[in-house]
Amino acid sequence: MQSLQQKALEWSGVAGEDAFAIDDTNLYQKLGHQTFVDLSTNFYNRVYADDQEWFRSIFANSNKEDAIQNQYEFFIQRMGGPPLFSQRKGHPALIGRHRPFPVTREAAERWLQHMQNALDSVPKIDADSKTCMQNFFRHTAFFLVAGNQMMNEQQRCAHNPQHKQ
Amino acid sequence: MQSLQQKALEWSGVAGEDAFAIDDTNLYQKLGHQTFVDLSTNFYNRVYADDQEWFRSIFANSNKEDAIQNQYEFFIQRMGGPPLFSQRKGHPALIGRHRPFPVTREAAERWLQHMQNALDSVPKIDADSKTCMQNFFRHTAFFLVAGNQMMNEQQRCAHNPQHKQ
Repeated sequence: MQSLQQKALEWSGVAGEDAFAIDDTNLYQKLGHQTFVDLSTNFYNRVYADDQEWFRSIFANSNKEDAIQNQYEFFIQRMGGPPLFSQRKGHPALIGRHRPFPVTREAAERWLQHMQNALDSVPKIDADSKTCMQNFFRHTAFFLVAGNQMMNEQQRCAHNPQHKQ
Repeated sequence: MQSLQQKALEWSGVAGEDAFAIDDTNLYQKLGHQTFVDLSTNFYNRVYADDQEWFRSIFANSNKEDAIQNQYEFFIQRMGGPPLFSQRKGHPALIGRHRPFPVTREAAERWLQHMQNALDSVPKIDADSKTCMQNFFRHTAFFLVAGNQMMNEQQRCAHNPQHKQ
């Protein structure tokens, strides 16, 4: 069975050495706190105004302001800044926290398209930083598709023993 | 409904400001790479030799050397060192990766007892570092008990709609 990492690398098309290149530079120090707030605000403004209901509805039970804060605090923590997310909410636990959402390949691609547009809309983000972040986001999105699939598979198996691997 | 963080704080008894006090010092720089290898090796030697079969059996399908490496690479990454875990395996995704294991309160307490003994067996770990790590481990263990409960709850709900919250 392929690991989460193998699936994420294969499905995202992001090379292993690029997926976590965000760790080669301290992007928080380089870009500053407000840049991450601006990025997540721009991103969720796009998501909550998406004209495709199937995608917009994924976020229907989440408060937009909470979604923005959760996201920029995680980005800040993961990209070299203070551990704001963990201090407020505990471990990122990305797969567990995304469990309620249908993280399909289509949803991942649409999430990434909105994030691409958001990255292009925040002038403070230079080309090198943007490339690092795009690779990280793309790897992470498909890592979560793999996580979603793993969870659904385990759920089915628990109720249909003949499907056990 | 209580959040994962609220449950982790309540059940662990670790105060919010202590749970991630590991982030106030760079423990990797302070203690060095080999200390984390020694800690995880000592820990898993205890786990795999546990005289209580119910606990030892949780790890029966995992290779001990893999378990040791996974653990010290995560600790190193989380405590200020290079992102060894993510480079090899992707996001820590603690709840998702612990999904196959029955992370009960009893299992958390026994995990913590072995870790306490392991911490006491590695002379390089000074008293202050030990306190920080104990609080982090205790918070994390009960965060995973809460995550385990959340997953099981969602799994039941998915198959018994009348249980939906």
